[in-house]
Amino acid sequence: MLHAVIMAGGVGTRFWPASRAARPKQLLSFGSGRPMVEDTLDRIGELVPPERILVMTGAEYVGLMADILPEVPRENIFGEPACRDTAPCIGLAASVLARRDPEAVMAVMPSDHLIVPKELFQGSLAAAEAFLKTRPETLVTFGIEPMSPATGYGYIQQGKAIHQGEGVAFFEVKKFHEKPSVATARAFLDEGGFLWNSGVFVWRADTILDSFKEHIPRLHSKLGLLAETIGTDRFGPLLGELYPTLEKTSIDYGIMEKARHRAVAAVKYSWDDVGSWRALERIIAPDEQGNRVQGSCECVDASNLIVSSRGGIVAALGVEDLIIVHTPDATLVCKKEMAESVKQIVERLPPEFR
Amino acid sequence: MLHAVIMAGGVGTRFWPASRAARPKQLLSFGSGRPMVEDTLDRIGELVPPERILVMTGAEYVGLMADILPEVPRENIFGEPACRDTAPCIGLAASVLARRDPEAVMAVMPSDHLIVPKELFQGSLAAAEAFLKTRPETLVTFGIEPMSPATGYGYIQQGKAIHQGEGVAFFEVKKFHEKPSVATARAFLDEGGFLWNSGVFVWRADTILDSFKEHIPRLHSKLGLLAETIGTDRFGPLLGELYPTLEKTSIDYGIMEKARHRAVAAVKYSWDDVGSWRALERIIAPDEQGNRVQGSCECVDASNLIVSSRGGIVAALGVEDLIIVHTPDATLVCKKEMAESVKQIVERLPPEFR
Repeated sequence: MLHAVIMAGGVGTRFWPASRAARPKQLLSFGSGRPMVEDTLDRIGELVPPERILVMTGAEYVGLMADILPEVPRENIFGEPACRDTAPCIGLAASVLARRDPEAVMAVMPSDHLIVPKELFQGSLAAAEAFLKTRPETLVTFGIEPMSPATGYGYIQQGKAIHQGEGVAFFEVKKFHEKPSVATARAFLDEGGFLWNSGVFVWRADTILDSFKEHIPRLHSKLGLLAETIGTDRFGPLLGELYPTLEKTSIDYGIMEKARHRAVAAVKYSWDDVGSWRALERIIAPDEQGNRVQGSCECVDASNLIVSSRGGIVAALGVEDLIIVHTPDATLVCKKEMAESVKQIVERLPPEFR
Repeated sequence: MLHAVIMAGGVGTRFWPASRAARPKQLLSFGSGRPMVEDTLDRIGELVPPERILVMTGAEYVGLMADILPEVPRENIFGEPACRDTAPCIGLAASVLARRDPEAVMAVMPSDHLIVPKELFQGSLAAAEAFLKTRPETLVTFGIEPMSPATGYGYIQQGKAIHQGEGVAFFEVKKFHEKPSVATARAFLDEGGFLWNSGVFVWRADTILDSFKEHIPRLHSKLGLLAETIGTDRFGPLLGELYPTLEKTSIDYGIMEKARHRAVAAVKYSWDDVGSWRALERIIAPDEQGNRVQGSCECVDASNLIVSSRGGIVAALGVEDLIIVHTPDATLVCKKEMAESVKQIVERLPPEFR
C-alpha cells in the first residue's frame, strides 16, 4: 500500500526573520494563506489517508506539527532528537513502515516546497506506485524539467526511457550531479536530458532498507536496533540515545548516487522549492512598480522590492531592488542578489534573534 | 526675573516610525540616553528654577510631560487643545507669566534641539537678560553661525553691533529671511552676516504682549479674555473653546518679521535641530564602514547606513546609503537623500501606524 512520509525537519534560515528556530520555514505561508506543511498534507489528498502518513520533524516541533496537522495520528509524528540530514530520517521512516506493512510503498516528500496542481502530483505518485509493481527493486525519484541554469539544485541525468506511466515517463538514471556551477548548469541545459532533483522519492520500504544495508551498513544496523523497539516504551529513550550518533548524510549522497536500480520520473507539475526570499518574485504578482508585497506596505518612489511584513507595516521610500522583511522583533534589509547570504547573517546574530 | 518656556508641541513626523502621535519627537533620545525634552530642562540648569519654567505641549501629552519632568509643577504644564503654531503658544505663555510676574523676562525654546555645552547656553540666556535691562523694548532672538548653505532654516541678516554681552555679541536685525533656495543660501554665506534662526527667543513678557497687540490684535484680544480666567475653573473650558479659534501663525511670521525693536545674539554654542534621520550623521560616530547605529544591528557588506532599532534587531546585507528604522510595529527603509520626505509617507499610512 502507498504511504507518505513528510519531511518537516529544517529551520530554513534563509527566510529569517520570518523563519526562526521556533517557527521554521515549513510553517510559513506563501500564497495559500496556510503553512506550507499543511499545503503538503492537503496535496496528498485522498491518495493516502492520514493513518498512512508519517511526519518526520525536529523533536522541538512535534507539538507544533500535531497542532497544525490534527488529522495525522499523534503516533505518526516522529521527532528527530538531532539534525542528521535526510538519510537517517528516511531510514527511520522506512523502518517504521516496513514493520507496519511488509508491502509498504513510501512516497517521501519535503514539507516546504510549492507544487501545483495537486492532481498532477497525486497522479505522479500513483504512476510511480504502479511502476513499482513491475519493478519493485527500483528507487524512483521525481525530476523537474529545468527552467533555468539554476545552481541551487542537484541535477539528474536521464538515461533511456523504461516505462510510460499515466501522464509520466520513467527513465533510467545515468548519473546524479551535485549542485553545479553556472557554466556546468548551462551545459546541462544545452545538452538536454537533465532534470532538477526535487527531493521527492517513491520506493518500497523494504527496498530502501536493503539499499541502506548495502551502502550505509552501520546506519542500517543501528536502525535495526531502533526498529525492534518501535511501539514499546524503549523506543523514545533509544531514539534519543542512538539518533544523534547516526551517520549524518543525505539520501542523495548516501544512497541514490550509488544505487543500482534507479529511475527518474519526469513529472509535469509546477514546482518551486521556495529556496530564499527571491522565490516571492515567482509566487507573488508585482504591482505597477514591480513591488511584491506580503502584508502591509506603503511604497513611495520605490520599485522592484520584495516586502514581507508580519505584525506591522513597512514604509519604503526611494529604494529599489531590495528585500525588506519586518517582524515585531527583527527587520531584514537585503540587496536582492544577496538573498542566499541571509543564512550567514543569521549565524552572526545573538541567539535570541535566530 | 528670568522665566523659561519650553515648547514641546509638535509630533515630528520626520522621525517616523520612532516618533508617533503617541510618542512625539521631543520624547526621543539622541546621544544622551534621555528624552530630548528632559535634556532641554537639564540645559537650563540652575539659571531658572522649575517653578519658573512653563512647558507648552499638546493636550494629549500633558500626562507624558508631567511624568518625564516631575520637577516642573503640574500647573506649569499647559496642554494646547489644538495645533496653532508658535504665536498662540507663546502668547499664552506670555499672558500667564505677565500675570505672575510683571517684570517677567521669558526665554522661549524648542524642546527637540541638541545644544552643547549647556554652560554656553546658560551664559547666552543670562547675557540676553542683562541686555534687556537696558533695552527692555527689544525682542531678542538667538542666531547660529551657519556651517552650510542649509535650506531647512530661516536666516537672520544682522545689522550693526549694538551690545557686547558676556561672551555674546548682540546685533540689530536687518531682515528675517524665510527658508531659502540653495542658491540664495549660498549667496547668504558668501556675503556673510547671516545667522540661522534657531527658534530661541528672549524678551520681556509685557513687551511681547504689546507686540501681539500691535501686529496680531485679534489674537491678542482673545489671549486677554483667556488671561482673565487664569487660575480659575473657567480657564480650562475657555482654553478648549478659544484656543482652536486662535490665528494659526508662527512667531517669526506673526511678530518677528514686523517688529521694530529686534536684536540677534550671535550665540557660540553648538546647535543641531535634529530635523530628520540624517541628523544622526552628525550625532552618532560612524563605524569603519560608515554605518551609524542606534540599537542592535548586524551589518554585512553594508555601508553608510543610518540604523535605529527599538525593541529588536536590524540585519542589513549588501546595502548602502539607507536609513533603516525598526520598531515593533513598523519599519522604515528610506534612501538617505529622501529623509525629508518621510513626513509625506506618514500622511499616507493607516491612522493606527501614524
